[in-house]
Amino acid sequence: MAKLINRDTSGVYIIAATPFTDAGEVDHDSIRSMVDFYIGHGVTGLTILGMMGEANKLTPEERHAVIDTVLDQAGDLPVVVGVSDAGLRNLADLGRYAMDKGAAGLMVAPNAGPAREDRIEGYFHAVCSALGADVPVVFQDFPLATGLPVSAGLIRRLSTDLPQIVMLKHEDWPGLTKITALRRMEDAPGTPRLSILTGNGGLYLPQELQRGADGAMTGFAYPEALVQTVALHRAGRVDDAEDLFDRYIPILRHEQQPGFGLGVRKYVMMRRGAIASAATRAPGPNLSAVDMAEVDRLMDRLATRLA
Amino acid sequence: MAKLINRDTSGVYIIAATPFTDAGEVDHDSIRSMVDFYIGHGVTGLTILGMMGEANKLTPEERHAVIDTVLDQAGDLPVVVGVSDAGLRNLADLGRYAMDKGAAGLMVAPNAGPAREDRIEGYFHAVCSALGADVPVVFQDFPLATGLPVSAGLIRRLSTDLPQIVMLKHEDWPGLTKITALRRMEDAPGTPRLSILTGNGGLYLPQELQRGADGAMTGFAYPEALVQTVALHRAGRVDDAEDLFDRYIPILRHEQQPGFGLGVRKYVMMRRGAIASAATRAPGPNLSAVDMAEVDRLMDRLATRLA
Amino acid sequence: MAKLINRDTSGVYIIAATPFTDAGEVDHDSIRSMVDFYIGHGVTGLTILGMMGEANKLTPEERHAVIDTVLDQAGDLPVVVGVSDAGLRNLADLGRYAMDKGAAGLMVAPNAGPAREDRIEGYFHAVCSALGADVPVVFQDFPLATGLPVSAGLIRRLSTDLPQIVMLKHEDWPGLTKITALRRMEDAPGTPRLSILTGNGGLYLPQELQRGADGAMTGFAYPEALVQTVALHRAGRVDDAEDLFDRYIPILRHEQQPGFGLGVRKYVMMRRGAIASAATRAPGPNLSAVDMAEVDRLMDRLATRLA
Amino acid sequence: MAKLINRDTSGVYIIAATPFTDAGEVDHDSIRSMVDFYIGHGVTGLTILGMMGEANKLTPEERHAVIDTVLDQAGDLPVVVGVSDAGLRNLADLGRYAMDKGAAGLMVAPNAGPAREDRIEGYFHAVCSALGADVPVVFQDFPLATGLPVSAGLIRRLSTDLPQIVMLKHEDWPGLTKITALRRMEDAPGTPRLSILTGNGGLYLPQELQRGADGAMTGFAYPEALVQTVALHRAGRVDDAEDLFDRYIPILRHEQQPGFGLGVRKYVMMRRGAIASAATRAPGPNLSAVDMAEVDRLMDRLATRLA
Repeated sequence: MAKLINRDTSGVYIIAATPFTDAGEVDHDSIRSMVDFYIGHGVTGLTILGMMGEANKLTPEERHAVIDTVLDQAGDLPVVVGVSDAGLRNLADLGRYAMDKGAAGLMVAPNAGPAREDRIEGYFHAVCSALGADVPVVFQDFPLATGLPVSAGLIRRLSTDLPQIVMLKHEDWPGLTKITALRRMEDAPGTPRLSILTGNGGLYLPQELQRGADGAMTGFAYPEALVQTVALHRAGRVDDAEDLFDRYIPILRHEQQPGFGLGVRKYVMMRRGAIASAATRAPGPNLSAVDMAEVDRLMDRLATRLA
Repeated sequence: MAKLINRDTSGVYIIAATPFTDAGEVDHDSIRSMVDFYIGHGVTGLTILGMMGEANKLTPEERHAVIDTVLDQAGDLPVVVGVSDAGLRNLADLGRYAMDKGAAGLMVAPNAGPAREDRIEGYFHAVCSALGADVPVVFQDFPLATGLPVSAGLIRRLSTDLPQIVMLKHEDWPGLTKITALRRMEDAPGTPRLSILTGNGGLYLPQELQRGADGAMTGFAYPEALVQTVALHRAGRVDDAEDLFDRYIPILRHEQQPGFGLGVRKYVMMRRGAIASAATRAPGPNLSAVDMAEVDRLMDRLATRLA
Repeated sequence: MAKLINRDTSGVYIIAATPFTDAGEVDHDSIRSMVDFYIGHGVTGLTILGMMGEANKLTPEERHAVIDTVLDQAGDLPVVVGVSDAGLRNLADLGRYAMDKGAAGLMVAPNAGPAREDRIEGYFHAVCSALGADVPVVFQDFPLATGLPVSAGLIRRLSTDLPQIVMLKHEDWPGLTKITALRRMEDAPGTPRLSILTGNGGLYLPQELQRGADGAMTGFAYPEALVQTVALHRAGRVDDAEDLFDRYIPILRHEQQPGFGLGVRKYVMMRRGAIASAATRAPGPNLSAVDMAEVDRLMDRLATRLA
Repeated sequence: MAKLINRDTSGVYIIAATPFTDAGEVDHDSIRSMVDFYIGHGVTGLTILGMMGEANKLTPEERHAVIDTVLDQAGDLPVVVGVSDAGLRNLADLGRYAMDKGAAGLMVAPNAGPAREDRIEGYFHAVCSALGADVPVVFQDFPLATGLPVSAGLIRRLSTDLPQIVMLKHEDWPGLTKITALRRMEDAPGTPRLSILTGNGGLYLPQELQRGADGAMTGFAYPEALVQTVALHRAGRVDDAEDLFDRYIPILRHEQQPGFGLGVRKYVMMRRGAIASAATRAPGPNLSAVDMAEVDRLMDRLATRLA
């Protein structure tokens, strides 16, 4: 499989939503249209079954079916699959399924009981052992959601000791100095670089790129904003990248609200025709009429600004 | 089904472990011997697939199989099934399965995103609606594990507004004053009582009974201690109950350590012949040789004390 | 004192930094120039000794001195004083000092041990009793910092039961729906309105105003952005308000990073001449050369955009 | 000063309460009687102004006065002073005051903003630099209260890199394996040992001693239980130590409830004549009549058991 992620992977891996029908079923037609929507906006890859993919509300069979449909529709586009799970066996089973089906790598967040770096370190050794050394792994560093803070030093050590940890999904907050710290550690002789794609809805993407990130791995209902920002930046047009990006910030910062933001994102994606329904699975979030009117206004304002 | 839990339920509902083989498979033979062990020690009922049952490491099929075996072996003994889940649909599906198979009720912990009492209140309305009004529900109040603190007033309001919430699994810590507060609220005319069974490994069981709890819903590898304490207390022999209980505190407080304690409990249950292996599913906890020797010592000391 | 805050207070109460010399002493000259800077940019009032004022790193004497200098320099401008403290006695002593000196009101965040709404409710009754019924109080609702989530219903109840709680400093996140909920509760007959000024660095200020907030109580090194946004909005020029605001978002979202953002804010204020040094007291935050260059760039870009 | 703590310090450093009058004033007469009470029960040293000393409710002047009275009354007994503070300057000022007055060392808990081991590491370097290299420091590891988990590896590294960190106040929970891990690290050649005194109310003291702890640094209203347990253990009478200790567990586990337990402790100390009033400073905790009767009962039962 030529399309495995590696330590030089860059670009935009869009965190994909999982579309549901209004009745709460996984909507496979919308998965296909959504994948086309993402591809049409130029993403480098997809990341599915992450936190914003409501993976923890799906049954294993539903996760398998989502993987199948996405991979089928994505064609050659690399797809990273989130496999975080309270149980290592379930994590490994899902990971094996995804890799067998052609995934480009797996994403895992720390999950080893109460916070403490030695526990997280031991956990990732166990995870990598369970997955097998040939499976590339993305370390998802998202303390706001996991409650598990991780020093740059531990990320670096894990990525050295476990060669298969090739990428960091960076979403510590504030986290800009962490990127700088990680890049400086790579100045030491013999230190393999780490691909760093950034999350947090992209809220600091230009700054993150300027500090050495390789791109974004996050959701945003306007993926073209992420794609163009990264492309311009990597073409050396740093100011143009930031100019373009800044036009999207008002709605991006609205979508980036924790929890609630998933409702915003799905609503925008529905309005843009990417998916048929904005439904999330219970217990939500759900947008009220006031919430939707607010998003409508932000979308209209963006359209005006882009025009 | 005569054996549904209700607002007057009392006694000891033991939180059952889920036994695994050393290879990590659910061990159905050990489930049967464990149920017999619990029955042999006089428990009033069982609660399965709770946090200490490692439910979040099982697949749905494995949960179904555990329910089947436990209910088959338990015979007439009432069995409460933990169904907490990030997704309401999975929660309801598992709940329906369990009730159809003959469960006595379902246990649910708050799980509606970030802490806030209005979210928890809305969540339990949604849960009860999804389960159907005829299904008795245990509200599990365990902030140390869930991160979701709940006032006595909200528990009271939920139990009034939603008649099917008939029982509180009380494990706030410190939580003794909460029992007193809840019992005082029942002095108001027309207020239906709430069955209160207490958790936290039983660490404060005599005090909880003296404040009005109806019994225990917790795990402890010496279930006879809980059973006899509750029985003596309910027979009016309050001092005898506490005398008996106090002899078990040294090992009980050792087993009650969060996370780690599950390893202790399974090790003791294995040594007592209730299950074949002390294995937990990865990522653990796992006991080292030092940890096991420490438990051995505590078991020996208990045996001496009881002799 | 004509300038006490009340239930109809609106506008921008800027959360003031506490300036230090490079050697870490409170810099009273910079306090005066900072107050002039804020006044010059049209703020309605000041809020001092909040979390971003590093109050918890000051001695009581230093807090008194800060109050003295600010009130002296502020003249007729109303000044709210943050008095949150682990001990109620210290809180009340500082509050009394501030009110005697001419403060317009006091700000208090929940602080009653572990999270639970009944504890928070009891705590605010104790706080108001200790302060005296004539002292207007701002309830600071900032769960990200306090770890204490609060339902809209409790805020409403406190503000009804305790008439002196006249204002909410709203900074739950996400929190837009909370404003809508609180305003709807005021539709009930006989319900006194609550002044709502919003925090979170102002990141959602236009949306908050559109949902019924009365203004902002937050820090931002460009206070004119908050002032003009609120003024335009209150003049009915809703679109103009948001247009103006959106130009500041790129640097505002940078400043709004928790912890780190205080370093950004002080650096910008120093560069704008409001204070002599960007120093914070240990343990920080402190900006590196890379961090400062990043802020320089954002400032330059803003200047270009405004030109 | 001969009585500085060092890497070989052992015994029982009792965490001292701060007595107040019913009116809430620091009660210096009770400080003296309390110190005599502790001395009379054989403690090795005192630790004052810790979390259970309500230090965060005292003014700096009150803290100074407490230090003065305790040191005066303690005579040759070594006294460790808790100096944790949000601001490093206040921490250092209080530390200097205490050391000048004759304290045996200072205790500091991590406090460097959001959890992360690199922040904690940097913070302790700053703390030690601010205090001066000649001041012995106790690292207080109490994640349940601080929210800041710390790996054994970091504690070891800090204690090696900063020779003045001579002692660990161990109160991670569960934390028994941490003691074993730390002791094993000392097997490496050239590794200086660390004095380990354990906290958590002493709940696991025999196990902690058996794993290599040097004694206890915790509060308990029956300090003789800690003293005798440690003495017997260190005399090689391991079983006798645990037998003695176990008789105290029922009331010890009651006193060890977080928050609430301080009220229990002060009530018992008042009943034992150590202090004049059980008052804590607002916002509490406060015991109700029911709570007090419950403690009375536990005290009576202990008296019977000891008789």
